[in-house]
Amino acid sequence: MDGIKVIEIKKSVFADNQIDADNLRSELKSRGTYLLNLMSSPGSGKTTTLTALINQVKSRLKVAVMEADIDSDVDATRLHEATGVEAIQLHTGGMCHLDAEMTRQGLDNVAAKDADLIILENVGNLVCPAEFDTGAVRNAMILSVPEGDDKPLKYPLMFSVCDLVLINKTDVLPYFDFDMERCRKNVLMRNPKATIIPICAKTGEGIDLVATWIEKEVKDWKNK
Amino acid sequence: MDGIKVIEIKKSVFADNQIDADNLRSELKSRGTYLLNLMSSPGSGKTTTLTALINQVKSRLKVAVMEADIDSDVDATRLHEATGVEAIQLHTGGMCHLDAEMTRQGLDNVAAKDADLIILENVGNLVCPAEFDTGAVRNAMILSVPEGDDKPLKYPLMFSVCDLVLINKTDVLPYFDFDMERCRKNVLMRNPKATIIPICAKTGEGIDLVATWIEKEVKDWKNK
Repeated sequence: MDGIKVIEIKKSVFADNQIDADNLRSELKSRGTYLLNLMSSPGSGKTTTLTALINQVKSRLKVAVMEADIDSDVDATRLHEATGVEAIQLHTGGMCHLDAEMTRQGLDNVAAKDADLIILENVGNLVCPAEFDTGAVRNAMILSVPEGDDKPLKYPLMFSVCDLVLINKTDVLPYFDFDMERCRKNVLMRNPKATIIPICAKTGEGIDLVATWIEKEVKDWKNK
Repeated sequence: MDGIKVIEIKKSVFADNQIDADNLRSELKSRGTYLLNLMSSPGSGKTTTLTALINQVKSRLKVAVMEADIDSDVDATRLHEATGVEAIQLHTGGMCHLDAEMTRQGLDNVAAKDADLIILENVGNLVCPAEFDTGAVRNAMILSVPEGDDKPLKYPLMFSVCDLVLINKTDVLPYFDFDMERCRKNVLMRNPKATIIPICAKTGEGIDLVATWIEKEVKDWKNK
């Protein structure tokens, strides 16, 4: 699609993903680039959330996005059109997750080498992406209200590896049996240090708090 | 939990899953048992849908359920309490899908050897479960309204392997930008033979149609 770069990602040949992820983080540190790995179920609102977030921070941070997907370039096109920032599409060729080497292949194709913040929108899946360190500085995830407040009980690893948990689609809270306090407790049981922010990407509610979080993160990473 | 059998599933050692799946289907055929593999994203309403469906068919069909999950026995407990039918929990030990051998390990633990219908609730994931034939007679999946009508574009394999697609949570259609006709077109693009049934598991809308579909399927399988 016009203006959208589509990269076909190859499966990693490196046996030790952890070493590769640590190396990637060191390289990103020396470049002054903060990489955020964003995960969620399909349909939780990753692309809408990113669009709202990027529009809030793009005047202060240089941002680029890598959209990982099994197929299609729906997300990269949508995001680029809505924000104007560089968005490339990573095709995983059926793979259900990204590891550090696959992430590196994506980063090599990002034109903005001086980006302050690169966001990796991982494959929509609460299982496999949690198992692989992508080399990102932090992991974040979106849980949407319709999915239910019990998800941290059922997908323990995902919630234990995430430093930021966004509870999206708060506008439909009246129509679902979703208890925000129960959800908080379930998330904190998996990761007591998690930052939890209820948001509504559609109306923009809470996005300013996410912007504040990410701007502080990027600043701390550069000064670390 | 009381009354709930929890099985720790081992990873398959068989290289050729397809042969194993075909063998499993032959065995099920000779027993007169129909196995349905039900897939979806996390939080699409698999357990609620199964509960409503089973309560409609259990007087005519002997039903048992295998709930596959990374962890927890929330679903099996909930389903058994709400329907009274045998429900066992399969722990996949972090695995993101079930293959035929793993399904067989589950079936070996189902007490109701004379069940007409066994439903496998697969791990909540739109990617990996679609790649492995479990040995089921049919694959079914649930797409819920909040996930969006574009999901067949983004998870092509899942929609091409499913014979039955249930569109759940129709009660919240007014609150989401979800076009049922566009969704139908997207599903049929992946699988022109798919049966598509809009339902609301919470209110029971459409469950009678699902019951009619499954009862005909089970009858045809026995007479095949």
